[in-house]
Amino acid sequence: MSQLKGNLIFGQSGGPTSVINSSAAGVFLEALKHPETIEKVYGAKHGIVGILNEEFYDMGQEAPEELKLLKHTPSSALGSVRYKLADPDVDDTDYKRLLDVFKKYNIRYFFYNGGNDSMDTCNKISKFMQKSGWEMRVMGVPKTIDNDLYGTDHCPGFASAARYLATSTMEVYQDATVYDTPQITILEVMGRNAGWLTAATSLANIKGAGPDLIYLPELPINFEDIKEDVENVLKTKNKVILAVSEGVHTEDGKLLPELVGEVAVDAFGHKQMGGTGEVLADYLRDHFDIKIRAIEFSLLQRCAAHLASQRDVDEAFEAGATAVRKALEGVTDHMVGFKRADKEEYECEYILIPLDKVANTEKKVPREWINEEGNGILPAYYDYALPLIQGAVDMPMEDGLPRFARLKKVLAKA
Amino acid sequence: MSQLKGNLIFGQSGGPTSVINSSAAGVFLEALKHPETIEKVYGAKHGIVGILNEEFYDMGQEAPEELKLLKHTPSSALGSVRYKLADPDVDDTDYKRLLDVFKKYNIRYFFYNGGNDSMDTCNKISKFMQKSGWEMRVMGVPKTIDNDLYGTDHCPGFASAARYLATSTMEVYQDATVYDTPQITILEVMGRNAGWLTAATSLANIKGAGPDLIYLPELPINFEDIKEDVENVLKTKNKVILAVSEGVHTEDGKLLPELVGEVAVDAFGHKQMGGTGEVLADYLRDHFDIKIRAIEFSLLQRCAAHLASQRDVDEAFEAGATAVRKALEGVTDHMVGFKRADKEEYECEYILIPLDKVANTEKKVPREWINEEGNGILPAYYDYALPLIQGAVDMPMEDGLPRFARLKKVLAKA
Repeated sequence: MSQLKGNLIFGQSGGPTSVINSSAAGVFLEALKHPETIEKVYGAKHGIVGILNEEFYDMGQEAPEELKLLKHTPSSALGSVRYKLADPDVDDTDYKRLLDVFKKYNIRYFFYNGGNDSMDTCNKISKFMQKSGWEMRVMGVPKTIDNDLYGTDHCPGFASAARYLATSTMEVYQDATVYDTPQITILEVMGRNAGWLTAATSLANIKGAGPDLIYLPELPINFEDIKEDVENVLKTKNKVILAVSEGVHTEDGKLLPELVGEVAVDAFGHKQMGGTGEVLADYLRDHFDIKIRAIEFSLLQRCAAHLASQRDVDEAFEAGATAVRKALEGVTDHMVGFKRADKEEYECEYILIPLDKVANTEKKVPREWINEEGNGILPAYYDYALPLIQGAVDMPMEDGLPRFARLKKVLAKA
Repeated sequence: MSQLKGNLIFGQSGGPTSVINSSAAGVFLEALKHPETIEKVYGAKHGIVGILNEEFYDMGQEAPEELKLLKHTPSSALGSVRYKLADPDVDDTDYKRLLDVFKKYNIRYFFYNGGNDSMDTCNKISKFMQKSGWEMRVMGVPKTIDNDLYGTDHCPGFASAARYLATSTMEVYQDATVYDTPQITILEVMGRNAGWLTAATSLANIKGAGPDLIYLPELPINFEDIKEDVENVLKTKNKVILAVSEGVHTEDGKLLPELVGEVAVDAFGHKQMGGTGEVLADYLRDHFDIKIRAIEFSLLQRCAAHLASQRDVDEAFEAGATAVRKALEGVTDHMVGFKRADKEEYECEYILIPLDKVANTEKKVPREWINEEGNGILPAYYDYALPLIQGAVDMPMEDGLPRFARLKKVLAKA
């Protein structure tokens, strides 16, 4: 084992998931097992910005029971961030600052948890440190409900959101079909460019309680076609359940909310999402004189830890722990990924994917898993997703309410 | 025991809850125990309309295991309805038709499950049948997430929705406070005239993860005051969580969506709800240049059976079973209600409330449980609500998805 002695810092970035803290627990609990190599284990306050500001917590001061409770605490316990580092060839101010902080705190292990953008950040930092001669191990820990990271069978966070969406769709189906009167119910699901999550509503169809129509961002849509699809459903039944990704767009790349107004843009230049279901509802109201209701799952789908997939919680934890173990073995510049073992029973193998490959490459739902009409999901997707959503979590409770981790958050000193 | 022999019919009415089918299970399973008195047990398809149309299911043909699964199946398995019977003094057509059907099928037990409107329906039918000399037992079984029925400590359905809201608020809190940037998150909760459910978001405050501001329909609101409240919160922290009832209204009785457009009206003359959070978000966007997001819990809050309170499931079941037992003892014209036993440990006693008292009387959140400023909930509410939300349900699962009841729904023949 290559013994690079020093301290470790872990940061959480991008949008929360139900299990991002489970990965944090995996990193912290594994790293704290190796005090001979990793002396201090730090958690960055609000990701990369916490490192730039020299604000990070000394995780060794936390009670191990609380670190374990992170497995069932949604969102990012350390605080997250959406901060885009400049291209180091254009402006290396932030990178120099990071190098100073790494040196000051003898950070030799930098782990970053996030999606595409975060892996890009991770990759740029690693390359800069190599160029600067600062020896360190840089590892990416994946997370994204969007499930769109390159090279991994699936991403931590996706399965729990998928389980939430499949279950909630089944429940909403019971409610939305309860009256004898015609009704259109629109379910708006997160997902900028990939429809993995929106497709998860289709799992409810296995139980006969799912959407009639599903629209993913993988294929362009237009209002006319959707109207016809709805008309067709209404020919044989008086209820329409329609699931739509917030990221669906027209042939010329316009999001539905953009067709009726302006849409804000975030730090990474991504358009702010949400409102798609309501825009579609408004359009359909002009054409169908029946009750139409849009439901936006909004933040609920990514923070519903009570409905997380136990498999997802476990795999997220292992992704964090594996990153530590691999880095201790000398690996750097890789993200931990998942490979589905070639067995009848589902089994997850942990693999390593070079950061430069994963950064900014998006994985989409294969065209052949979407029906020909582009308005439904085929059973191949069920075979893919169903094993991932297995296992109800045994949520720690107190007073009938979830018992989330309570961290002391002791700020580190140099 | 007064032995009135004949058949029983049970109908579900109004908006669904997570446990309305648990009451149905209570009625069916109890009634099926007494074949010597109750020969046939019917379930009306879409409530009162199913009786008018002579469309009802023979519940004796269902597998007992499936009837038990109703305890964990949200919404109304028989189908619900929003149909207002005329005042019988003005137009008694429907009542005469009901009498014909009751006679044709020898219906001697009519049980109706619903809220205020349904108890009014129940009461009118009972009075008409008495006048017509058709001996029968008419019982109301309460249900409403709104928790606004007169004479009962609480209503089946409320506690499960409250548990969902408290849990989801805690989860959303983790998510909505994850970035270091200022943000206002608005949670819109159901409730036309009573704020019981909106107040349930305050239970998350027990765990330090609840709303800063809460607005119930019990007190008039205005935009200016809310803006000032938000400003005050922003003086000491950069995140505002604000819970608002869809039913809040201005001093002159206008709902927030009415301030910006027209609002549809249902069969009972009630205004259609929803959209309040978004209207408030739009208003606040004109005054605060920070991220503002509105989340509408929509149907999710009333159909999330996976997060039901076990206590609520049990009490809902008992409400149905008690109605049967009491009717068999000769009781009629009453709704089953809940009384909190005067003990240290929570215990529910089942009581009877005359239908004419419960019909169309609304119970609101006491003024003394709301803070002086009218923007927060006091601990007296916690003492009331916390015992009700206890107990996680052990949701029957199949393929990682809920296993809801599968009824054969065999239509009855005369």
